Amino acid sequence: MRVEDIDTPALLVDVAIMEENLRWMQAKADRAGVKLRPHTKTHRTPALARRQVELGAHGITVAKLGEAEVMVEAGLSDIFIANEIVGPLKLTRLRRLARRARLAVAVDSPVQVHALAETFASEAEPLDVLIDVDTGDARTGVQPGQPVLELARLVSAAPGLRLRGIYTHEGHSYGAPDVAAVQAVFRRSQEDMLATAALLRQHGLPVEEISVGATPALLVADILPGITEIRPGTYIFLDAAQANLLGTYARCALTVLTTVTSRPTPERVVLDAGVKALTAFVRGAGVCQTHGYGVLKGLPHLHLEKLSDEHGVFTALPGRAWAIGDRVEIIPNHACPTCNLYDRIYGVRDGRVVNAWPILARGESR
Amino acid sequence: MRVEDIDTPALLVDVAIMEENLRWMQAKADRAGVKLRPHTKTHRTPALARRQVELGAHGITVAKLGEAEVMVEAGLSDIFIANEIVGPLKLTRLRRLARRARLAVAVDSPVQVHALAETFASEAEPLDVLIDVDTGDARTGVQPGQPVLELARLVSAAPGLRLRGIYTHEGHSYGAPDVAAVQAVFRRSQEDMLATAALLRQHGLPVEEISVGATPALLVADILPGITEIRPGTYIFLDAAQANLLGTYARCALTVLTTVTSRPTPERVVLDAGVKALTAFVRGAGVCQTHGYGVLKGLPHLHLEKLSDEHGVFTALPGRAWAIGDRVEIIPNHACPTCNLYDRIYGVRDGRVVNAWPILARGESR
Repeated sequence: MRVEDIDTPALLVDVAIMEENLRWMQAKADRAGVKLRPHTKTHRTPALARRQVELGAHGITVAKLGEAEVMVEAGLSDIFIANEIVGPLKLTRLRRLARRARLAVAVDSPVQVHALAETFASEAEPLDVLIDVDTGDARTGVQPGQPVLELARLVSAAPGLRLRGIYTHEGHSYGAPDVAAVQAVFRRSQEDMLATAALLRQHGLPVEEISVGATPALLVADILPGITEIRPGTYIFLDAAQANLLGTYARCALTVLTTVTSRPTPERVVLDAGVKALTAFVRGAGVCQTHGYGVLKGLPHLHLEKLSDEHGVFTALPGRAWAIGDRVEIIPNHACPTCNLYDRIYGVRDGRVVNAWPILARGESR
Repeated sequence: MRVEDIDTPALLVDVAIMEENLRWMQAKADRAGVKLRPHTKTHRTPALARRQVELGAHGITVAKLGEAEVMVEAGLSDIFIANEIVGPLKLTRLRRLARRARLAVAVDSPVQVHALAETFASEAEPLDVLIDVDTGDARTGVQPGQPVLELARLVSAAPGLRLRGIYTHEGHSYGAPDVAAVQAVFRRSQEDMLATAALLRQHGLPVEEISVGATPALLVADILPGITEIRPGTYIFLDAAQANLLGTYARCALTVLTTVTSRPTPERVVLDAGVKALTAFVRGAGVCQTHGYGVLKGLPHLHLEKLSDEHGVFTALPGRAWAIGDRVEIIPNHACPTCNLYDRIYGVRDGRVVNAWPILARGESR
């Protein structure tokens, strides 16, 4: 099958670039002597998760229990759900799944610890738990130091639970103003994590895992000694945000293949991809800031200026024609919600379609 | 099944409000003596399309050929694809589908007319075509008046095609600054369409259909005599944008059911719904302008301030507690891309789940 045989809009991945991205991060983890546990929320695709494990990943990360269920069904067996699992329906599902695979989950409150303990107290195997530490992202998580110690003691004493360690996500690295600031965010975050782990160990609590990671940080900054695990997600594809950090689109593996459907004026080019094919996501500030709603592959100064449900619009360059029927590849602003719109990713090598991986966990946000 | 038995995030519709919204628009069409051809891209759900037809709709509108294929498969038989259909793969699919149902498509260029004529010249039945007229939305479409006449002549003379009429979408009504401006946009657009139809008729071209519509315009403005068809979509649910136009959330039927998963500070409430459950779509300006990424049902001054892939964050009101495990319903900014993230819509009446409609055309943007 050739790329010309794929109808649009469609999700393409350049397999050679993806493989390079995968090997690059695995090599970085290996050099630093840490485990790579890739965040598979980016692609939600068991076949790609298996490829990551083949290349050396120690298990995978997911964001949702629904993703974990699909990954276990597809044969993945070591999964960290980097999120708080709340509510009786989810706890029942979690208990069922934990009998089939090695799982771990996050907590940032005694409320979750009590509910998990009640759910797992009578299970044969304890559930592994990591404390969610907020090192500056200001989303979920407890503050480093004493608050982590208190929650870790609670986990450690709870029936049915086993404290595996602590983790953080440096989501705030996306908004850092420049590369040096991304590096500073990551160093500071790791120092906070290492100091917190030391505090726990001083108090006799085991900390097997000190887990960190966000792709921007890992692309440009060093992993400190003492860290045991990294959890990047987007590194498999790299999107327009990561390209802006790196100053090049050359490592972007993922594109949305579109068709020019209308040329209403000499300037206006209309594509058959809108919010339902690209997402409306923008990164508004910082070194990863995106421009418009996606960038034309090969023409990094051209971006989509307007998206509606099923249309994307950009302004043609003078002297360059785009005709109705022409095909255009768009590098998305954010790989993760873009993948979540499609049922398959086409793998492309030298203009030939060599894979059509089903995105089996698409829509699995429950 | 009770709402408590649905895991989150999930898409809910208040069936009583939806039915009122459906009847309201059907009554408006009936009073004006025009056909209602609802735009089903909003829900992508054949069961709801059938309900619209049951209540009086004359066929349906879709945005994409893929949606049309799903709707025909589900038994819908009269479909206008309000979009330009481009490329050999799509033309082959269109020809195949046109043998099974009454179809019509849009054109805004001789390029599309020639390709359609070539595709349909040897078919037993001609394909119906409507000219896409740009009455101010500045997306696709030809300008009213003479440019429409020229393209209509081409369609009329092309083998395999039948000119059904002209249509426009007043997408720019969303950005109008106030209700009076929305009304002015709609009046001006209809006047342009009526004048254009008169011009075509003067030149001996039949104009069976003069089709207009966008939900904001139809909510607050009159349909002029001479118009034959309206094509609103979002009216079935009404979202935060439409609510801002109306000054009330009372007619919003669609919500995303979420759970509070984290309470890291007294102010910060974190929900289990992010970009993959709500879309990142915002309406930036005008009377339909949205605030944040979705509004809390029953608390219209509270909106989500931050979305990441799987988290939504809002700031708690002083004196009102939200606890981990509490459930919160969010009215989305834009119903259409939100529905496109889910596999089913749960219909709710008096706290009981009375339907679970599959969103069979979810993801069908091809």
